[in-house]
Amino acid sequence: MNEGTCVGDKAPVAELADRLVDGEVSTEHDVLAAQRTDEAYLTPSGWPLCSVYARSTADVVETMRWAARHRVPVVPRGAGTGLAGGALAGDGALVLSLERMTAVRELSVDDRLAVVEPGVITADLARAADERGLMYPVDPGSASRSTLGGNLATNAGGFRCFKYGVTRESVLGLEVVLADGRVVTTGHRTTKGVSGYDLTGLFVGSEGTLGVITGATLRLRSKAAGPRATVAACFPDAAAAARAPLQLARAGLLPSFLELIDEVTLRAVRAYQPLDLPGDGEALLLAEFDGADAGGAAARMGQLCGTLDAAVTVTTDEEESERLLSVRRHALGALERMGRTMVEDFVVPRSRLGDMLTEIRRIAARHDVLIGTVAHAGDANLHPTLLFDRGEPEIPARVWAAADDMFRIALRLGGTLTGEHGIGTLKRRWLRDELGDDATDVHRTIKNALDPLGIMNPGKVL
Amino acid sequence: MNEGTCVGDKAPVAELADRLVDGEVSTEHDVLAAQRTDEAYLTPSGWPLCSVYARSTADVVETMRWAARHRVPVVPRGAGTGLAGGALAGDGALVLSLERMTAVRELSVDDRLAVVEPGVITADLARAADERGLMYPVDPGSASRSTLGGNLATNAGGFRCFKYGVTRESVLGLEVVLADGRVVTTGHRTTKGVSGYDLTGLFVGSEGTLGVITGATLRLRSKAAGPRATVAACFPDAAAAARAPLQLARAGLLPSFLELIDEVTLRAVRAYQPLDLPGDGEALLLAEFDGADAGGAAARMGQLCGTLDAAVTVTTDEEESERLLSVRRHALGALERMGRTMVEDFVVPRSRLGDMLTEIRRIAARHDVLIGTVAHAGDANLHPTLLFDRGEPEIPARVWAAADDMFRIALRLGGTLTGEHGIGTLKRRWLRDELGDDATDVHRTIKNALDPLGIMNPGKVL
Repeated sequence: MNEGTCVGDKAPVAELADRLVDGEVSTEHDVLAAQRTDEAYLTPSGWPLCSVYARSTADVVETMRWAARHRVPVVPRGAGTGLAGGALAGDGALVLSLERMTAVRELSVDDRLAVVEPGVITADLARAADERGLMYPVDPGSASRSTLGGNLATNAGGFRCFKYGVTRESVLGLEVVLADGRVVTTGHRTTKGVSGYDLTGLFVGSEGTLGVITGATLRLRSKAAGPRATVAACFPDAAAAARAPLQLARAGLLPSFLELIDEVTLRAVRAYQPLDLPGDGEALLLAEFDGADAGGAAARMGQLCGTLDAAVTVTTDEEESERLLSVRRHALGALERMGRTMVEDFVVPRSRLGDMLTEIRRIAARHDVLIGTVAHAGDANLHPTLLFDRGEPEIPARVWAAADDMFRIALRLGGTLTGEHGIGTLKRRWLRDELGDDATDVHRTIKNALDPLGIMNPGKVL
Repeated sequence: MNEGTCVGDKAPVAELADRLVDGEVSTEHDVLAAQRTDEAYLTPSGWPLCSVYARSTADVVETMRWAARHRVPVVPRGAGTGLAGGALAGDGALVLSLERMTAVRELSVDDRLAVVEPGVITADLARAADERGLMYPVDPGSASRSTLGGNLATNAGGFRCFKYGVTRESVLGLEVVLADGRVVTTGHRTTKGVSGYDLTGLFVGSEGTLGVITGATLRLRSKAAGPRATVAACFPDAAAAARAPLQLARAGLLPSFLELIDEVTLRAVRAYQPLDLPGDGEALLLAEFDGADAGGAAARMGQLCGTLDAAVTVTTDEEESERLLSVRRHALGALERMGRTMVEDFVVPRSRLGDMLTEIRRIAARHDVLIGTVAHAGDANLHPTLLFDRGEPEIPARVWAAADDMFRIALRLGGTLTGEHGIGTLKRRWLRDELGDDATDVHRTIKNALDPLGIMNPGKVL
């Protein structure tokens, strides 16, 4: 530990290091530099005081007691893959890293649950469940690197939410260390349970502002039977592609993956790899079905998209399927090769997906920003990527203006500011517009009640 | 309005009546007598002050402002079908009936949602959704009489939770009048959304102790395709029947209905109607499958139950299916013909369903109480019905002792006090045993923050 690089106020970091059971404290410049920010690439003002690597709930308890005593702001941190600035740490903050709490404490096939520590990598749990014939369905884009703790803090979504729900729908209970160091367990080991308030739901998605999640009981599901089936449908325009999910829903078709990729993004991917798609349309819809009726459902979707003038491929061949789905997987990487990016995340009511895509095109033209959009189409959760020059020292004003337009229009269409990335610091300025004054005050009331000193991830969300 | 029958303190009820926009105030003895209690049949001490029939959110706002000004406790009330005493009103309370707020404000097929007022009967929404090709899946036993507001307040479950989830899983957003009369909207019109804390989840299941739900945006689903298929399996003993759901889960079979009926209950139903079951076993498992693969899944379940020594019927014939499922539907009525009843509701981890059934048999013997048990078997949510003599003026001590034993054992097995009926007044005394001191204190902190005067349904839950 190098106290010499310690920046911030005069809190006795050495005292904290003595109190930890298995954890470690670091004040090294490189550690702090890496842990100041996340994948939103926003820069916090100031510099963190130190970083704690917790190895146990006891470490987190000691850290929170110390932080409360010395009024040090605490920023809980997983893998740092967040996209909204929720893990930014500046101004004398303590970075509380949970990434070394990596135990899967239990995995029960009969109770269909796993008890995990927050540092477990999302894909590692998915693999462990798969090996036991089960499924952990939540599949964020960063699953190979993100931690479950981070997924819980942001209520992460991903590719399979339309069928299997977001992180919240897979959480049975939590272990949480409160701002004053008390440890509470919430929820149940059972799927159902209504004893008391839904504290589990309150902590999930609260972005570290109400407490530190040190454990979670997660619901696992039966692995879908049989081979999967994939549909790729090229639509003449984005509006037609946006209508298809509504028709699928009317027909009772429920894909486990349903992604829309717009023309700008398709161009970017095409510059990166050859595309062998069923047609040359402006918008691509990719779907995957799992379960016993996967092939039948995919065939029905194919017919339905055909009636909407799409050129369609339906396949159960694994290699062809992988090739088709890779178009979506490479979308962000392909866009990133074109410049610096700001990846957005908001949701509109399903019926307004087409309208929103049209609005995004107008916004791009109005502010002279290239925008490539992909969407979790079943839930109308859009991810427009705003591109700008790598040489720009900061995010340019026209990019912020375009983002601002998008958020306001999404809200006007009945949507919400964020579907899965969170508010963090990135969207704080718009939150009151969505919630209204009274609901914002209720947030503040709850925050003050659970964190009266205001040390839990201050400046985030509210 | 008859002020002469007004009982309680000296709050000016006439002033309240003047402030209501469309609502009505009643102090009639018969109205109050009917609204003092619910289907838990517990008797509150004292007598309510008056009853308000709200017709609009504005009425609820005026009522809460008046109640806050005069420190009058408010008991929100739907149809009064609750089974835990959450709607008991005594001691000068104001009964706030939402049952006249019955509008379905919107039903959108493309956005797959309904915006409802709290007085809508559950089955009425299910029917309205069905007519538009959609499904509202939450199906509590009292669906033909219960209101959605009551379902939301208790986070009601029912028969289809194993596949489709409890009420919470179908709520996108709420309109809530707070204890001070402010109106907040929570949640979204979209399925996904992580802007701010999950206030929706916090109010759902809070049993009227945090605010009054005056509106809800509910998620609708696609109606399951094709004919349903039913399985009836008679097992030689309850333990074997309890193992079957675990095997079903391992095989990836997900029925939309999966009920276990024990020997005592089967005897009661048999005394009431002839039973034409596939065998004479001690325990019956009834299942229904919906969706494109219903027939195939039912056949696979039939085979699987056969390997567990069950005598099995599998059918897609609607009449035969109705006849089989009626065994479960008539279970409680049949038990009620045998005496006065206390219907219990708790959950154990799936793997402990058999153990809990064994424990219930021991408890029945130990306390000399006849207990008939049905269970939502997929979620291991048990409903033991404790029987006692109609002549008893109160619930006898041995019945309470048996209930106490059941709760303690359910908790010891890793379960929870209530799966869908709620805590109300019935289970308050056990809540701290389940939550622990610190989590109970967090409940109290949140309650005090949102209801500092303590007028929202006091004496319930906490």
